[in-house]
Amino acid sequence: MNQTDQMNQLDAEIIAIGSELLIGGRSDSNSLFLADELGKLGIAVRFKSVVGDERQDIVTAIHTAVTRTQVVIMTGGLGPTVDDCTREAVADATGQRLGRRKEALEGLTARLAQWGRQPSKGQLRQALIPSGATVLKNPVGSAPGFCLIWKKALIVSLPGVPREMEEMMRQEVLPLLRADCESAKRPPQAPIVRLLFHTFGLAEAEVDVKLKGLIPKGAPVDLGLLASPMGVLVSLTTKGNRSAPAKNHKLLQALTDELRVRLSDWLFAEGRDTMEEVVGRELTKRGLMLAVAESCTGGLIGHRLTQVAGSSAYVDRGAVCYSNRAKTEMLGVPMDLIAKQGAVSREVAAAMACGIRERAHVSVGLSVTGIAGPGGGTETKPVGLVYIGLDDGTGRPITEEHRFHGDRNVIKQRSSQAALDLLRRWLLGRPSGTGETCGKSATR
Amino acid sequence: MNQTDQMNQLDAEIIAIGSELLIGGRSDSNSLFLADELGKLGIAVRFKSVVGDERQDIVTAIHTAVTRTQVVIMTGGLGPTVDDCTREAVADATGQRLGRRKEALEGLTARLAQWGRQPSKGQLRQALIPSGATVLKNPVGSAPGFCLIWKKALIVSLPGVPREMEEMMRQEVLPLLRADCESAKRPPQAPIVRLLFHTFGLAEAEVDVKLKGLIPKGAPVDLGLLASPMGVLVSLTTKGNRSAPAKNHKLLQALTDELRVRLSDWLFAEGRDTMEEVVGRELTKRGLMLAVAESCTGGLIGHRLTQVAGSSAYVDRGAVCYSNRAKTEMLGVPMDLIAKQGAVSREVAAAMACGIRERAHVSVGLSVTGIAGPGGGTETKPVGLVYIGLDDGTGRPITEEHRFHGDRNVIKQRSSQAALDLLRRWLLGRPSGTGETCGKSATR
Repeated sequence: MNQTDQMNQLDAEIIAIGSELLIGGRSDSNSLFLADELGKLGIAVRFKSVVGDERQDIVTAIHTAVTRTQVVIMTGGLGPTVDDCTREAVADATGQRLGRRKEALEGLTARLAQWGRQPSKGQLRQALIPSGATVLKNPVGSAPGFCLIWKKALIVSLPGVPREMEEMMRQEVLPLLRADCESAKRPPQAPIVRLLFHTFGLAEAEVDVKLKGLIPKGAPVDLGLLASPMGVLVSLTTKGNRSAPAKNHKLLQALTDELRVRLSDWLFAEGRDTMEEVVGRELTKRGLMLAVAESCTGGLIGHRLTQVAGSSAYVDRGAVCYSNRAKTEMLGVPMDLIAKQGAVSREVAAAMACGIRERAHVSVGLSVTGIAGPGGGTETKPVGLVYIGLDDGTGRPITEEHRFHGDRNVIKQRSSQAALDLLRRWLLGRPSGTGETCGKSATR
Repeated sequence: MNQTDQMNQLDAEIIAIGSELLIGGRSDSNSLFLADELGKLGIAVRFKSVVGDERQDIVTAIHTAVTRTQVVIMTGGLGPTVDDCTREAVADATGQRLGRRKEALEGLTARLAQWGRQPSKGQLRQALIPSGATVLKNPVGSAPGFCLIWKKALIVSLPGVPREMEEMMRQEVLPLLRADCESAKRPPQAPIVRLLFHTFGLAEAEVDVKLKGLIPKGAPVDLGLLASPMGVLVSLTTKGNRSAPAKNHKLLQALTDELRVRLSDWLFAEGRDTMEEVVGRELTKRGLMLAVAESCTGGLIGHRLTQVAGSSAYVDRGAVCYSNRAKTEMLGVPMDLIAKQGAVSREVAAAMACGIRERAHVSVGLSVTGIAGPGGGTETKPVGLVYIGLDDGTGRPITEEHRFHGDRNVIKQRSSQAALDLLRRWLLGRPSGTGETCGKSATR
């Protein structure tokens, strides 16, 4: 691998292979992992290409990639079926011969033997490696990977399965790249640092206004905003090659301090932290047990809370009261209250929160009732009208009114986030309902 | 647009612009929409490229795209901030001058006026259009798009917001492409048809074996398999340019018939249909009401069932019984049964299903109890052990044992899918638990 010494500043391209990927519709976790890990070495992912299972198209993608980046990470197309032709495409693209490699075959056979199986004809193809390439062991699955230098670029071919790709990057590829980056012949590259700040309750344009002028002119940091039903994600990313690590660190610290002040209570989490983790930690810290009563969210809040390992320490139960009868039977919401105020009302939200808290004998009850649509809306109670309730047994339940826009799924997502955010603010003892743009108002 | 007549067989490349997209981690719904809509015209999406907000990188991507495809759809980078430089990049790439265009400015100003706003300095930049390009109206948002022909390729630039991109494709771009495809100068292109078949209960390798030899040699159809915690998705996709529409139709019909036979009961849905929609339809057809008792899934089954509009017609309620006390208090599961068999047991699953059915006074009760991990496993009851129960009031609850692999989220997802699949099989009156590879067994 000493040929990599010839390269200078390193940038990367990811080539994801698979006709299914070309069509999209699925979340791509591989890029997230690769951007993070390569970023630590100061290698920026500048391009990502997706191609189908057509051999010639993969060749084209490789030829394009090596002209514009020095590290090319290919994922996918290493399986045993005829569709899988990354091996052949790399051989074609680089003019190498494909041959069965002993160490690849041994790894493959050993793995299958562990599973009590013999390699099939298709699986034997997985031991074909372009000549001159280094075999990369797969510690998790059967398909070996490989890497080679061509036209001064390092071309790495890994399986597309996230768990296999990640382990092979960690155990085989990153050590190689690290050694190369640390070699004396290369100028040091500052790691690319990416800090995340999660907000809820502000529109993207409002966050934009709040952050105006945050980044000093010419500072080697990019500010990014990304809106979703879960809120607006703010990111600070250092420009790897154009900055010095020590200066970066100080700058990021100053920017983080300033961001926290500007985003104030709307900032609910940083980094990879999630709303449900934040809420779980605060409940644990205070030794509180939670119970949830959901109508329009249908179980989503319970699902999210229990995504956190160990959540049984603070989540006692949830009631999904889709029918009015269920609201009465499970939570004791009076039938006549529902008849008078409607199931979607501030009063019913309060009664639901109180009902679940009492029946579960816990410290806090959280509730949601609303109209997720597309049907069921009226002039006075339109689709997107959602009430949230929180009861802590003091006899003064908190309620919030929200008016969300979007389809059924978006309204459910936003409702669950608003409910957890109310709980978060309550846990932190902070006032609720200030500055919301979605028509929220709070009563106590 | 008559220059497009010079092109022949049409293929497409999608260029998605945005540093956030480069990092991934989010589902890309734009590609799904574009592949579908272009496919109807026989235009295959062969490449997808993602680039950050670097002007020079966007230029590089455009130059690459026009050498390998004839239709280039760019999304993103048309906003009002300095990051947004798609306009500049297209002008650079094609050697055109950028100028403020009257029709673009008028559309922009009219849209903002509707919202009671005046264009800001940044927003005025959105009216900059490369000379020679046609302005594409944005019927939903403020950013206009544009298209131009360069090096015999049609380059289209649209906003990245899905709703805006989709409307502009429908109202502006697809009519253009359709007219071009129907023009006499071009050989007709067969539409690309993509059929989806959703299976659950078989590993990818098992589906592969079952479908061996399905596609006749040389037939213009690709078979695709994609595994996820929700099962294995099988797709049949016609090869647009290499096939005749009438022959395709007959071939696909024959393949579909054969697929249904081979996949048998493991096939739970086709096309864009989901498990929760299938189950909802079958419940409605039979006039049955459902109630759900969830432990390890934490509300996920309730959430999924209520993703379907109108699900209140057949979903009465759900109980999320995370604590043992909740199982007893909400469902009447005897404390001593939990003590004797453990909360994760066949017996408790049956008692949960029976308990929720009786308390909700509904036709069917469905339950899940298991160990989602990463903690809480023992030698005899490891992480991934999940019991599912179904009770229909006949006094003979059905239970299933599953042993799933994966992280907490995967185990929750698979558990919810297995529970809904048991309900589906029960609704269809089909035997359950045959041929499962994950250690499932059924008792009655």
